[in-house]
Amino acid sequence: MIPVAEARAALFDLVAPLPAEEVPLIEAAGRVLARPVSARRDQPPFAASSMDGYAMKAAEVERDAMFKVIGEAAAGHAFVGRVGPGQAVRIFTGAPIPEGTDFVVIQEDVGRAGDLITIVADPGNKTNIRPAGGDFTVGTTMSAPRILAPQDIALLASMNIPVVPVTRKPVVAILATGDELVMPGETPGPDQIIASNSFGLKAMLEGLGATARLLPIARDTLSSLRTAFELAEGADLIVSIGGASVGDHDLVGQAAADMGMARSFYKVAMRPGKPLMAGKLNGAAMVGLPGNPVSAMVCGHIFLAPMIRAMLGLGTDLPPLRQIALSADLDRNGPREHYMRAVIEGGSLRAFDNQDSSLLTVLSQANALLVRPPNDPPLKAGAMVNYLPL
Amino acid sequence: MIPVAEARAALFDLVAPLPAEEVPLIEAAGRVLARPVSARRDQPPFAASSMDGYAMKAAEVERDAMFKVIGEAAAGHAFVGRVGPGQAVRIFTGAPIPEGTDFVVIQEDVGRAGDLITIVADPGNKTNIRPAGGDFTVGTTMSAPRILAPQDIALLASMNIPVVPVTRKPVVAILATGDELVMPGETPGPDQIIASNSFGLKAMLEGLGATARLLPIARDTLSSLRTAFELAEGADLIVSIGGASVGDHDLVGQAAADMGMARSFYKVAMRPGKPLMAGKLNGAAMVGLPGNPVSAMVCGHIFLAPMIRAMLGLGTDLPPLRQIALSADLDRNGPREHYMRAVIEGGSLRAFDNQDSSLLTVLSQANALLVRPPNDPPLKAGAMVNYLPL
Repeated sequence: MIPVAEARAALFDLVAPLPAEEVPLIEAAGRVLARPVSARRDQPPFAASSMDGYAMKAAEVERDAMFKVIGEAAAGHAFVGRVGPGQAVRIFTGAPIPEGTDFVVIQEDVGRAGDLITIVADPGNKTNIRPAGGDFTVGTTMSAPRILAPQDIALLASMNIPVVPVTRKPVVAILATGDELVMPGETPGPDQIIASNSFGLKAMLEGLGATARLLPIARDTLSSLRTAFELAEGADLIVSIGGASVGDHDLVGQAAADMGMARSFYKVAMRPGKPLMAGKLNGAAMVGLPGNPVSAMVCGHIFLAPMIRAMLGLGTDLPPLRQIALSADLDRNGPREHYMRAVIEGGSLRAFDNQDSSLLTVLSQANALLVRPPNDPPLKAGAMVNYLPL
Repeated sequence: MIPVAEARAALFDLVAPLPAEEVPLIEAAGRVLARPVSARRDQPPFAASSMDGYAMKAAEVERDAMFKVIGEAAAGHAFVGRVGPGQAVRIFTGAPIPEGTDFVVIQEDVGRAGDLITIVADPGNKTNIRPAGGDFTVGTTMSAPRILAPQDIALLASMNIPVVPVTRKPVVAILATGDELVMPGETPGPDQIIASNSFGLKAMLEGLGATARLLPIARDTLSSLRTAFELAEGADLIVSIGGASVGDHDLVGQAAADMGMARSFYKVAMRPGKPLMAGKLNGAAMVGLPGNPVSAMVCGHIFLAPMIRAMLGLGTDLPPLRQIALSADLDRNGPREHYMRAVIEGGSLRAFDNQDSSLLTVLSQANALLVRPPNDPPLKAGAMVNYLPL
């Protein structure tokens, strides 16, 4: 048996960052910026007023001073001309500062009668002017890689980047296998159940930024499995579910080997989990997950999610585990790393009593996976533990 | 000026939960389950083996006992017949337990020669059988409302729910206003800048589960604004950006009032921020945000996100603020609630020095908003503060 980290390292060897593609800015949210991009303009492109008020010369600004208003500057409409001594320009937020002025007195501090204004309150020494290029200038870069958040989209718009280089989405083909499976909406026979892992993994992988394709359920024959693998053509990653251990009915490995896969098994020291199958098949990475519903989903979090991030160019560092206090005692852990379904409520974490790997109801109630290292001693309520949010 | 919570309560009065619609399970991830749904089957539908091994009578299981193998049971293929004394059935994980057996000895504990097997190791007293209905039974419900996570999708599949009732997505029309704005990709005039808030807010609102429509930029004329408001037809929420304060050039409120909106202003005691405009316009909720880029995005987090959650049926409770330690001292806060752009790194939070509400570069570098209450005293490094993740 090998530790989880060693299995993950072997899986990272199967994938590489995908190439960049260009997408319109309006479709770029949540995508991974593939390379740094540079602003095409200065922001603001001119010194601009940050308030509604009157622009004038700072040297003339004092309480009770009077000015003649000679024009107006609004956002999108600069004042054309030069402001002389004793003159002021009515100005609105975002407007370019008129030539000859270097101070904006806010409108609340001014009295007006026709074209004449008087400063009626202490205007302070804040100029209320945003300097040209104060946010960014031509060539200022946004660093990559990064998952583009809403605030990044706003900044890219402001930089006038209408088309954005992002990493191509990984395409994952998901293959559920087994004579016992039927699709949701069908009527299962007396020996059958509904395929569920493929639906859960598709949702998980798409949430991580992949495009997931569900293949038809493969039956437990070599020809059915061969057909399914052929339908995976064009995928970057093929994920099979079930049939990947060494029982007499586990044909997935044989079918993949027949098609040329250099097949590796990893007996991973984790719970829930089982041997993983992995290799390269026709240029794609291939991972075989166990068929137990919870094992498949947990392996998705522990193994597939890091592979997707690596393909997106986000590197192989893992998001740091989070820490929280236990709300109830826990027995000692065995020799395998244990990912326990748990719920965080009221600031502490409680692991569910029944951790059987077939129980999807328990997984659905969970909002965290408690991560216990091998041979972790018994823990008391209040002890700090590591977890992954779900 | 009114507190943030009071403004939010007024905005909640403008919206209500939207009706449910039915979507295919494969499109349901991330949607909000609109009402509880009930399992249409038991899982597992039969007592099933949790291991590969041999099924037999528990009463006969002991070390060195011998059995004749009379058949096989695999997932999807039950053993047909009854198992008598001294008999066993080869069984694989997920297969129905044969009639007449109530124990599975794992294959590692058995020696086999032709049709005869011998138990060669202590089999313990774990039956390795999952009882029928152990995960759920017909009528077991998944509670609503909830945002459907990948593990919920897997459970719904397993319950045989191919079509899922979810809350309809709120449709938000986003209206950027101002003669100074052009779209990304255009060449701005010397007085102009690029529309950025509308793009950032679209990304934010869609990430929250809404469908966002960008309207054409409205110019600073009543007729242009009227045209834009007419294009918002069919939206549940209209969000205008800019032109919502009381300056001479702020025509948005006048245009909305001309179209029948009962218009309210809320001077909100927050930074960054400005008066909000709000009301009902042709049956839709309408919110006018300030035009400063950072103010608009922060108001999106503080005001629009809770409105979207309320429309999705998720209620009006806010996600709890999180707590973290400061990494540097902070001055006292003024009389307004302050949402400071900040970055969390290495387990502590640092607020950026320059909090000017025009600086999108600072917002893009931030991963959190530090939330400071009105009149918060000076804080030392190490003090615990509240924040919202970005």
